[in-house]
Amino acid sequence: MYDIEKITNPSFIKNLSTKEMQVLCQDIRTFLIDSLSKTGGHVSSNLGVVELTVAMHKVFNSPEDKFIWDVGHQVYIHKMLTGRANQFSTLRQYKGLSGFPKRKESEHDCWETGHASTSISAAVGMAYARDLNDENYHVVAVIGDGSLTGGMAYEALNHIGHTNKRLIVIINDNEMAISPNVGALHNIFGSIRTNESYLNTKRRLKKLLKNTQLLNRVMYRAKGSLKRFVIGETPFDAMGFKYFGPVDGHNLDDLIKNLNFAKKADKPVIVHVKTKKGKGYSFAEADKLGTWHGVGKFNKETGEVSVHKKENCVSWSKLMCNGLIELTKHDSRVSVITPAMINGSALNDYQMLYPDRLIDVGIAEEHAVTMAGGMATQGMKPFVSIYSTFFKRAFDQVHHDVARQNLNVVFGVDRAGIVGADGETHQGLYDIPMLRPIPNMTIMMPKDAKEAYDLLYTAYEINGPVAIRYPRGDVFNVVPNYESWQSVPVGSWTTLKSGADAYLLSMGPILDDLVQLAEDLSEAEGIHVGVINTRFIKPLDTCLLDELAKLEVPLIVYEESAMIGGLGTAILEYYNETNQTVKVKRLGVPDVYVQHGSVPEVLAELHLSLDDIKAEINQVIKK
Amino acid sequence: MYDIEKITNPSFIKNLSTKEMQVLCQDIRTFLIDSLSKTGGHVSSNLGVVELTVAMHKVFNSPEDKFIWDVGHQVYIHKMLTGRANQFSTLRQYKGLSGFPKRKESEHDCWETGHASTSISAAVGMAYARDLNDENYHVVAVIGDGSLTGGMAYEALNHIGHTNKRLIVIINDNEMAISPNVGALHNIFGSIRTNESYLNTKRRLKKLLKNTQLLNRVMYRAKGSLKRFVIGETPFDAMGFKYFGPVDGHNLDDLIKNLNFAKKADKPVIVHVKTKKGKGYSFAEADKLGTWHGVGKFNKETGEVSVHKKENCVSWSKLMCNGLIELTKHDSRVSVITPAMINGSALNDYQMLYPDRLIDVGIAEEHAVTMAGGMATQGMKPFVSIYSTFFKRAFDQVHHDVARQNLNVVFGVDRAGIVGADGETHQGLYDIPMLRPIPNMTIMMPKDAKEAYDLLYTAYEINGPVAIRYPRGDVFNVVPNYESWQSVPVGSWTTLKSGADAYLLSMGPILDDLVQLAEDLSEAEGIHVGVINTRFIKPLDTCLLDELAKLEVPLIVYEESAMIGGLGTAILEYYNETNQTVKVKRLGVPDVYVQHGSVPEVLAELHLSLDDIKAEINQVIKK
Repeated sequence: MYDIEKITNPSFIKNLSTKEMQVLCQDIRTFLIDSLSKTGGHVSSNLGVVELTVAMHKVFNSPEDKFIWDVGHQVYIHKMLTGRANQFSTLRQYKGLSGFPKRKESEHDCWETGHASTSISAAVGMAYARDLNDENYHVVAVIGDGSLTGGMAYEALNHIGHTNKRLIVIINDNEMAISPNVGALHNIFGSIRTNESYLNTKRRLKKLLKNTQLLNRVMYRAKGSLKRFVIGETPFDAMGFKYFGPVDGHNLDDLIKNLNFAKKADKPVIVHVKTKKGKGYSFAEADKLGTWHGVGKFNKETGEVSVHKKENCVSWSKLMCNGLIELTKHDSRVSVITPAMINGSALNDYQMLYPDRLIDVGIAEEHAVTMAGGMATQGMKPFVSIYSTFFKRAFDQVHHDVARQNLNVVFGVDRAGIVGADGETHQGLYDIPMLRPIPNMTIMMPKDAKEAYDLLYTAYEINGPVAIRYPRGDVFNVVPNYESWQSVPVGSWTTLKSGADAYLLSMGPILDDLVQLAEDLSEAEGIHVGVINTRFIKPLDTCLLDELAKLEVPLIVYEESAMIGGLGTAILEYYNETNQTVKVKRLGVPDVYVQHGSVPEVLAELHLSLDDIKAEINQVIKK
Repeated sequence: MYDIEKITNPSFIKNLSTKEMQVLCQDIRTFLIDSLSKTGGHVSSNLGVVELTVAMHKVFNSPEDKFIWDVGHQVYIHKMLTGRANQFSTLRQYKGLSGFPKRKESEHDCWETGHASTSISAAVGMAYARDLNDENYHVVAVIGDGSLTGGMAYEALNHIGHTNKRLIVIINDNEMAISPNVGALHNIFGSIRTNESYLNTKRRLKKLLKNTQLLNRVMYRAKGSLKRFVIGETPFDAMGFKYFGPVDGHNLDDLIKNLNFAKKADKPVIVHVKTKKGKGYSFAEADKLGTWHGVGKFNKETGEVSVHKKENCVSWSKLMCNGLIELTKHDSRVSVITPAMINGSALNDYQMLYPDRLIDVGIAEEHAVTMAGGMATQGMKPFVSIYSTFFKRAFDQVHHDVARQNLNVVFGVDRAGIVGADGETHQGLYDIPMLRPIPNMTIMMPKDAKEAYDLLYTAYEINGPVAIRYPRGDVFNVVPNYESWQSVPVGSWTTLKSGADAYLLSMGPILDDLVQLAEDLSEAEGIHVGVINTRFIKPLDTCLLDELAKLEVPLIVYEESAMIGGLGTAILEYYNETNQTVKVKRLGVPDVYVQHGSVPEVLAELHLSLDDIKAEINQVIKK
């Protein structure tokens, strides 16, 4: 029995026997399940890498040897073994332990992740640095089969494969990344796993040798070698890697043996490890849908996950899915493209109803966007569902391929705004500054379900690319009904409340709170603040902006988004271009990376709470 | 003999014999060389695809069947065969024929390119659209081996490989893309080309069968089939494609036969075509450095290329290379990473002197940037040399990997500003709006050689990511001397000329002209305009901005860059944050895509010429 919380560093593993390590792994699992049942977190991926992480710390010497965890949500075991188990009660909470590798947490975290497919590039960089500096350590990247569908992982493999740089890539092949994997690569793994290529070769050899009677004798003698030879010919061998595998990722001896082989190689190595997501926890093991990928608190005995859904509410993602289902009934131009986020973006129902029109391309944002452009040239109008933070991956594709050709693609920008527990790698704060300088682009954000449907409908009437952004979290549900949807004039804002002393301009679901705030101010303090719904971020409602300028009252622009280049800036640019002098106070996310924590905690830290807005109104009006 | 200029559409090719097509190809080459010798353009790539393009129009029916040209600079023959040969005298000139596919030029151009590696994604999109719309046409992407090093090409292959979508990918394998190819994939092609895998297999079979005497007889009987079998097992087969090749790309019969095979397949197909860049023009054929990739006017008899280099000048790229060579002598943290742009960014001398420190990663901007981040974590400070337009490919990597971890990477943003003949896909107008909202980022632009060296030196003193942007074109040369380089205070601007009536704020080499303009205005019209060198775009020189505000004169901000989110906007944001009311006139590139043409022509169209600036000064002062 090991007291996981007392572990200060991984050196003790060096002296453990296999049996002892097995006990350690069991204790880690018990601790992990117990701890995550109270905090929530990434369950399945961490249960899958218990033995792998222990074996890595047995064979290598972190922090001299560098471990790079792709995506990084599978880093919990590594955190426990490097002295952070005692902080697990704070996991993913404000000022608590991050759910991803963080260099400031530990010298054992040498590279931070959050987005997929970066690990091999980082490892290549470290290997080059090591050799240029005449050092001698090992660089070990751990990447899932899902992350390997991302193009930059391939760019790195392609670059390093032909060199003689020492570098170890561990492929954590769990046959199901976040969504079940798509793609040719998945098939390749399948064939490696099941030795199909060996079987095929045998069949083909049989055919080509059909004119001789020698086959049986040749095959009999050669069987073992032939098998190794054929299976050895993976695409990875072809790319110049030394390939070890498949290795049983839950067998410590097998893992340690192969990692030791890898350690001795003098060229880039791939160790192909087969793991089972959720290993050792029956509910997670049985999960086929990815429910146990990331969960909230749960009952560890029953596997029941607490879901705090507001009454009559659905997630914004689900609302958009419902809207798309309704839209597709009436518009044959619609199809939905997702980069491996069927679950994350709640597209399961769409997939069930329109399997031909739901296209999951894998973790491949660049391809997703340009492919959508290709469809648009042929009369389709695809909807690309993409998280704000991952949309950055496809910036050039939106710009060069879609917007430059003014193609009919609608981007559903999911998780726009502060995301909470996932923290700085996942914040949806940069899509407005990214999209606004792109010609031909329309950018919108609905405040509620009705407006979401109307804007979706409007997006399908616009000629050219449109982005509809919506936050993480829930929204009061309205059942979609195509007949009731209304087209909205492009660039039109609405006045939710008139005011005499100042105007608040904002977008999205915060508007209800802002109207309430304005009403409270009116009643309690006699301050009359108007509220404008800036549902179009591009183009702006210049008529309304001109009217507001004439009122000669201060405008307060509030955005849960980066301030540089944001909505407030757009308004400054407009008034500057038209030579109008207006007092504009911009409130938004300053020029820093925003850490994890609950949305209210994070907003308070950024001075963006409703109380802060109220204080700003008072200050602006007093001046 | 064919009169190429009289061709109106490609249908006549259907009736031609092989002999006649050979004559046609010869005539095309003659026309191409003659025409490009007068206009300049992409010589080698187009000479390489003469037979391929003719064969494609023989076998397929454009525009019903869709041709998608990756990168697109090899589209000249296609343009000739689709009725545009008579416009070749205007190639790449203002309002003339584009050097890339353009949908508005012809119905035969169904997809526009300029950046690499997009063609397969576009083709996948079209194939999906076709099948959803119950149509039946062929979709044919033509992609070079160089473009296949880009991750998004792989994302598309990975996605489509396991489907049964009909789609034809022609790999135009010329063994040397823009720079000689790097990477594992290149080796794979090499092995396919030379049948090495066959030879290896033979050797390995020999070994494994060493205990039997049967080998010779087996091999003798099986040779042909075994060869096909082993060569058939390319990584493309493994990914689920039907593979045809290698095909001799200059043999019309071989091409037509294989394209007809491809046409009949009911799944994704790869046709691997071997071509020779520069085929049929001895100077281009002999080119090993990529000199004939894109050239200016040349003497077609002697192969002498006109070079109009100003006296005592070098290109900005070359200047930076010279600076990096000098810097590397004194700072062991330096290495240079290029995404396949050794030639384009004039890094050949660096490569010669520091072969270990010049890392060409292929057309792989994403990997280049994150790899640089990996090096930075280990004490290096790499310089990533990247064109402004291609930098967009790595937006998320700069943001998520480098800036978020505040890593020491210096980005050399080449071709910043209007690029001229390459046109809208290549304009360097968006790097400032892209980089400015990224926390931790420093952005600079030098006005001349001395300042370039000083800013480079300063960049290496800054902790965190730095971008140094510089334009296409030449600069007065100064030999670099590390001892004379001076550190510049971060965020400091300089006053090049004081003024009483207004101030011009700008960056880069235009400043000399602006000072001259200000002096002329002073002498001729008695208007005293100051000129400020805003060499830091982030952070701004807020002290100087405060001083300027106190002067209460209008500021005119001029930037050869997108205005939305640009330098002028940064200044608006600053004055807004500090509650200072200053008259700011922003001059820059409006919210449109900018076409090809010479830089002066394009600037004039955008109302950004020196005359326009002069007019704006007069107008601003009068108000």
